[in-house]
Amino acid sequence: MADAVATQVKIVEVGPRDGLQNETAVPTQAKIDLINQLAAAGLRYIESASFVSPKWVPQMADSADVMRGIDRVAGVTYAGLTPNLKGFDNAVAVATDEVAVFGAASEAFSQKNINCSIDESLARFQPVIDAARERGIKVRGYVSCVLGCPYQGDVPLSDVVRVAKTLFDMGCYEISLGDTIGVGTPWQARDMLAAVAEQVPMQHLALHFHNTYGQALANIAACLPLGVATIDTAVAGLGGCPYAQGASGNLATEDAVYMLHGMGIETGIDLQKLIAAGATICQHLNHGPRSQVALAELAKQGK
Amino acid sequence: MADAVATQVKIVEVGPRDGLQNETAVPTQAKIDLINQLAAAGLRYIESASFVSPKWVPQMADSADVMRGIDRVAGVTYAGLTPNLKGFDNAVAVATDEVAVFGAASEAFSQKNINCSIDESLARFQPVIDAARERGIKVRGYVSCVLGCPYQGDVPLSDVVRVAKTLFDMGCYEISLGDTIGVGTPWQARDMLAAVAEQVPMQHLALHFHNTYGQALANIAACLPLGVATIDTAVAGLGGCPYAQGASGNLATEDAVYMLHGMGIETGIDLQKLIAAGATICQHLNHGPRSQVALAELAKQGK
Repeated sequence: MADAVATQVKIVEVGPRDGLQNETAVPTQAKIDLINQLAAAGLRYIESASFVSPKWVPQMADSADVMRGIDRVAGVTYAGLTPNLKGFDNAVAVATDEVAVFGAASEAFSQKNINCSIDESLARFQPVIDAARERGIKVRGYVSCVLGCPYQGDVPLSDVVRVAKTLFDMGCYEISLGDTIGVGTPWQARDMLAAVAEQVPMQHLALHFHNTYGQALANIAACLPLGVATIDTAVAGLGGCPYAQGASGNLATEDAVYMLHGMGIETGIDLQKLIAAGATICQHLNHGPRSQVALAELAKQGK
Repeated sequence: MADAVATQVKIVEVGPRDGLQNETAVPTQAKIDLINQLAAAGLRYIESASFVSPKWVPQMADSADVMRGIDRVAGVTYAGLTPNLKGFDNAVAVATDEVAVFGAASEAFSQKNINCSIDESLARFQPVIDAARERGIKVRGYVSCVLGCPYQGDVPLSDVVRVAKTLFDMGCYEISLGDTIGVGTPWQARDMLAAVAEQVPMQHLALHFHNTYGQALANIAACLPLGVATIDTAVAGLGGCPYAQGASGNLATEDAVYMLHGMGIETGIDLQKLIAAGATICQHLNHGPRSQVALAELAKQGK
């Protein structure tokens, strides 16, 4: 089984977007500095902005300024979330490299959060995907609630597979499978990934596991032997899910990178620079890094 | 590989001893209440006391009173740490069900902490083990630093195997393999366990992984396919290692139980009662539960 384990994993850093949109607002310059620090630490994919209505997510209202302010490093993808054509146009206007759309595997979650069915929500993304294709911009697709839903509880595996495959067939080049409320355990995660991989090739799948129940790393470790090679994390464990009660905490990038390096899997990331980036952004928040690795290393350094 | 996974895992609860000895002192009655709550939650092995010199570990000076004060539940083993014959006699005097001795796999750790070599430290345990055998009391053996040492860094696998086998051959019925500073990652943990299991039968081995770098659950998940069926944890993630700089946090029992149950592995433990026990003892400490599961569940319950 270990043969299938990737020798290299791509970390999709979601801290500046998925993370900071669920924290108290931080100054625009702090976001810019964070993204620049992350690129300097070796991150090669940084979800940097969200082009949703500021009415919904005020923390992301300055996304265009952020995209204009960052130093573009060659080889780094600076991505943004685009729920609709207006958002897409705004993203393009500030040279966003890639965009992303969001679907839920849970019917109850979809109804509760965006007031429409899963299928209706997916249909709304088609114009975005079409527009992106015309401009040669890649689209990433997120699927939330793949291991459980705060409203309906269990989510049928068939729904996860269907939504993932639909987004892939619609034109998303990568499907990120989100355990939005962090309730999954290792073999559930492994079995879910295996089921999706029967319909969407593994090299087009990513794991996006929240650490709400402390399970994220164990779940990733259980999935690695299947060959998955893309993992979404947030520096300092920034953020969470604003819609899911009790749900907090993306998996910390530091903790994932530490594990992967310990397993002999390359990420191209400098762990100490990454820790420094997390510590810096946390100076703008009312809490320290939500990363065991960062806390241990900072303590060792007497910080 | 999954065939070897145990259907049932024994949790060795070390919170009242390994945990509380590394926290600010709590009242004796709080310890007694904690142990009683843990037994009521379904724990069947509770390390409850330490018969070391109160000069070294003042937090454990009331161990005899604790052992006298608890309600003994049939089927529950109440164990105590006994570094020498004097400690053993004190443990016997208060009807301690089982005792434990401590060895290190790291020569530097042994020298630094108990000022003698590994072999000298092991030799000192022989009288304890002999005395216990005479009385028909079982002895558990701990091996610390199995995945790294705060002083010497890497610890040769051969040293881990040698110390584990020596303690087993001396008469310890179970060897608990401790990642004292929590630095190991999944495949290191798996490979270490596999190496030890070549010399000591798996049914006599236990995992004792600290969560300092957030890796403990992932490491356990990686070891389960080898058939290990005993895991040491501390409710609310109490404690850590007083001698290892930057090292904090036993793995929380709540997080381990949640994972195991999610994997279809029985523990006999009532998770909600366990969470309540952890929340109660934390009222005596200057921090909340260091358990993601406890924090998530308490938040859901509005606590």
